[in-house]
Amino acid sequence: MQNRARVLIDCKDSKGLVYKVSKLFYELNLNIDSNQEFVEKEDMHFFMRSVVTGNFNPQILEESLKEILGSDVDVKVLPPSKKNIILMATKESHALGDILIRHQAGELDANILAVVANRDNLKPLVEQFNIPFIYISADNLSREEHENLVLQEIYKYSFDYIVLAKYMRILTPNFISKNDGKIINIHHSFLPAFIGANPYKQAYERGVKIIGATAHFVTNDLDEGPIIAQDVVSVNHRFTWRDMQQAGRDVEKIVLSRALKLVLEDRVFVYRNKTVVF
Amino acid sequence: MQNRARVLIDCKDSKGLVYKVSKLFYELNLNIDSNQEFVEKEDMHFFMRSVVTGNFNPQILEESLKEILGSDVDVKVLPPSKKNIILMATKESHALGDILIRHQAGELDANILAVVANRDNLKPLVEQFNIPFIYISADNLSREEHENLVLQEIYKYSFDYIVLAKYMRILTPNFISKNDGKIINIHHSFLPAFIGANPYKQAYERGVKIIGATAHFVTNDLDEGPIIAQDVVSVNHRFTWRDMQQAGRDVEKIVLSRALKLVLEDRVFVYRNKTVVF
Amino acid sequence: MQNRARVLIDCKDSKGLVYKVSKLFYELNLNIDSNQEFVEKEDMHFFMRSVVTGNFNPQILEESLKEILGSDVDVKVLPPSKKNIILMATKESHALGDILIRHQAGELDANILAVVANRDNLKPLVEQFNIPFIYISADNLSREEHENLVLQEIYKYSFDYIVLAKYMRILTPNFISKNDGKIINIHHSFLPAFIGANPYKQAYERGVKIIGATAHFVTNDLDEGPIIAQDVVSVNHRFTWRDMQQAGRDVEKIVLSRALKLVLEDRVFVYRNKTVVF
Amino acid sequence: MQNRARVLIDCKDSKGLVYKVSKLFYELNLNIDSNQEFVEKEDMHFFMRSVVTGNFNPQILEESLKEILGSDVDVKVLPPSKKNIILMATKESHALGDILIRHQAGELDANILAVVANRDNLKPLVEQFNIPFIYISADNLSREEHENLVLQEIYKYSFDYIVLAKYMRILTPNFISKNDGKIINIHHSFLPAFIGANPYKQAYERGVKIIGATAHFVTNDLDEGPIIAQDVVSVNHRFTWRDMQQAGRDVEKIVLSRALKLVLEDRVFVYRNKTVVF
Repeated sequence: MQNRARVLIDCKDSKGLVYKVSKLFYELNLNIDSNQEFVEKEDMHFFMRSVVTGNFNPQILEESLKEILGSDVDVKVLPPSKKNIILMATKESHALGDILIRHQAGELDANILAVVANRDNLKPLVEQFNIPFIYISADNLSREEHENLVLQEIYKYSFDYIVLAKYMRILTPNFISKNDGKIINIHHSFLPAFIGANPYKQAYERGVKIIGATAHFVTNDLDEGPIIAQDVVSVNHRFTWRDMQQAGRDVEKIVLSRALKLVLEDRVFVYRNKTVVF
Repeated sequence: MQNRARVLIDCKDSKGLVYKVSKLFYELNLNIDSNQEFVEKEDMHFFMRSVVTGNFNPQILEESLKEILGSDVDVKVLPPSKKNIILMATKESHALGDILIRHQAGELDANILAVVANRDNLKPLVEQFNIPFIYISADNLSREEHENLVLQEIYKYSFDYIVLAKYMRILTPNFISKNDGKIINIHHSFLPAFIGANPYKQAYERGVKIIGATAHFVTNDLDEGPIIAQDVVSVNHRFTWRDMQQAGRDVEKIVLSRALKLVLEDRVFVYRNKTVVF
Repeated sequence: MQNRARVLIDCKDSKGLVYKVSKLFYELNLNIDSNQEFVEKEDMHFFMRSVVTGNFNPQILEESLKEILGSDVDVKVLPPSKKNIILMATKESHALGDILIRHQAGELDANILAVVANRDNLKPLVEQFNIPFIYISADNLSREEHENLVLQEIYKYSFDYIVLAKYMRILTPNFISKNDGKIINIHHSFLPAFIGANPYKQAYERGVKIIGATAHFVTNDLDEGPIIAQDVVSVNHRFTWRDMQQAGRDVEKIVLSRALKLVLEDRVFVYRNKTVVF
Repeated sequence: MQNRARVLIDCKDSKGLVYKVSKLFYELNLNIDSNQEFVEKEDMHFFMRSVVTGNFNPQILEESLKEILGSDVDVKVLPPSKKNIILMATKESHALGDILIRHQAGELDANILAVVANRDNLKPLVEQFNIPFIYISADNLSREEHENLVLQEIYKYSFDYIVLAKYMRILTPNFISKNDGKIINIHHSFLPAFIGANPYKQAYERGVKIIGATAHFVTNDLDEGPIIAQDVVSVNHRFTWRDMQQAGRDVEKIVLSRALKLVLEDRVFVYRNKTVVF
């Protein structure tokens, strides 16, 4: 029974961790296809991601690792499998469309279960990819009422991640805590940051020369969760704020898809308010 | 008398501006070596930078342009000449050293009159380039007292620009208004921005994936003046905050030197809180 | 009759060009919405792109400009209109899909007339966007025979540009000259360049740290026509050659779409083997 | 006796390598400060770089590792120490100056033993940093004669690396093989590549939009050795070829210094014609 799995270890650092793990792999006669470790020096926290192949049972391997490393260590042995994701959007198609195209091309190791949106204009796009489009208008609803309808719909599915592909509504702490560590967001980023309405207009008025995008996990701290990926694009004074927005969209979609890919491959560890990305 | 000059025009947009200017150039038989225009659409503000050669007197050309365009139009005709600059630093050598090396190689169209610093450790570096080093300690002095000593020293020179090459003290509104539009600064930039002490440590704790630098004119709004140039560099979780600082230094020095070069070539117009860079 | 048009001028440089053009605009009481000029110094060649609005007839404006500037000057006055484009692809969906998504979102000022492919696997993707998919297999055909079938099909349409969205066949000089200046291609680029089969594998074996993409007009010199846009992405030793290929795809699709947008907005002048991009 | 050392392992991959090494570290009670491994999949070749601290004798640790891993495995245990480097230059100061400034600021873990140049104009710059400047003119000498003079001078020193900071002469296979694996070079890179005289002029004529720099080890294959670091900068049609050259210089100096730093920290493994950079 030839198997393949990703081994993820996340714990307080201590002497002999690599030794203990590699010893077990050796005794089980596993091949290590790739292996990355990292010690967060401020707190002496240890992270490890190995891809192993061999004749083993993933569940038993996980238990053996827990025995060796102690019960308080976060260990996961994940056989390769598609993650299930829910996409949420509002009306812009760039980030959503990029994920749909990649998914159809087999680039993403995921099943897209559904797209939930608070506007209906993306329905034709989504349905042409044969993916369920769930339109939940927020008109005349309180934030809580709307989110309850959303939760009701998405909980019909068993999902691993919710990807906010330019979902333009602020989520409540209730929604976030119910899906803790599962929500990925993309948002524009500027140097410096602009607070308030229409940041692109503010960026234009400030004459920024660079526009960025940040993909991150969502925590209660709005737009402030652990960063997964970032990138930027150059702009200049000839860009209107709409041109800046367009430039921003290009970098947003690439960064969100890059982040999603990293998450789907179990390459991202979250620790405190940051990530370790192998 | 073959001459060469940069013609800079900055005014409210109106019909026929380019026509009037190009007509004068044509009648004076001038060659237009390069020409860039831009209209800021929000306010309909016009910017133009031409480099002209021909048989002309720069001062008379400037007067003729003012006659044609009206007295409230900002017109400058600048024959090529080295700008005079004062550098200010504290203790880090990267941005200062980069300017000194470029200056010595003839890359910068400037005379460096002096380097003023509130620490003395950069004295050997500066003096080995045969540039006066003026050490003005801030010990036991109020901000105003220290700045008065600085002003006293730099006002011995006639300078066009003050370049803050990692000068780590906050300037008072008095100092800034006395040198309005003449002070260029470089500072690190992050996505998101971090307020308060040791931003690199904060950036580390947040796990940023990109570190940037912004060169800008200094206004009373600290670190918030018109942006001249920006750039970024990628970092990852393996960077300690000191590594991030080092990466930041590399981008800081390149961005400051790039901004300085643009300013020395009269390519930068300031309008409200932004720049037009030709 | 309020009109708007792009004025494109491309000619040998001489004194008074800007004067003559701006005089005409002034006399016709036109607003200049944007204006860019450039003089290629090696040959003293002049390029100008203005966007004008006002009460004018585009055709008459073009004739007036020709009268003023001489009959050998390349002048075009183009009222805003969608360009007609044909896409050509083989089997990869990234570049094609990016254009389809942008087109559907109204980002591209173009009508996509059809997608021509020498494989049939992209048929569902294209048809779900309600765009004709023309499959022309090259099996058992000479290059000329296959191209003749392609030409026969595309000549049923009146098109402005052919966009090669990862069309993996080499075009004959005959095909290229018949569509001279109308074919846009995207291809991966490396530092250094790699000749021959599977350049990604060669790039991997060489351990490149950067992978790029170049969008260019196609001339008889294979992969060597005037460059419209370029960009790069960082890679490292952990990238397999397939990972490099994937990274390359991301930059390819962004660069091709960026180049296409520039061309559709008539911002690209071709001169000898290079471009001026306003 | 608290010690610190870098452990570098480079060998054919086989099962248990990490186990054997980590077991030894564990038994010796060493702390692993950082640890990176990589397996080159095409050839199944293993690379490992650990930084360990503890009570150990570096030489004995190296011997113990060799005993465990076999005599044909390349193992190095390097206590922290400054590498000795020779710089070679011709007449441009940008890359050389950047290294000199960084060295003086304590950024580089190196002793600069001397600068060797075939022109004398950089003498003042080098000597103001109190570093020996050795001028060896190539006038009226054959390539071999000149190199013999250079070798004679540099062999007076015991050096680890020769850094070609824009040394504009081609080295003979004899010179290279005598200093195999020790010579680091920087050169401009273009997409596409340009062969022959004045590549910047060719790049200008081709209208490239990006200019790059590649730092690499020198092998007999001119400009084709294992790549250590690369980066690029954007240019456009407004850049003359001299502007492109200037833009290229900025990226050259940053890339060379970055590569040098990686090499000085023993982060670069060379394997076949590529590098693994931890």
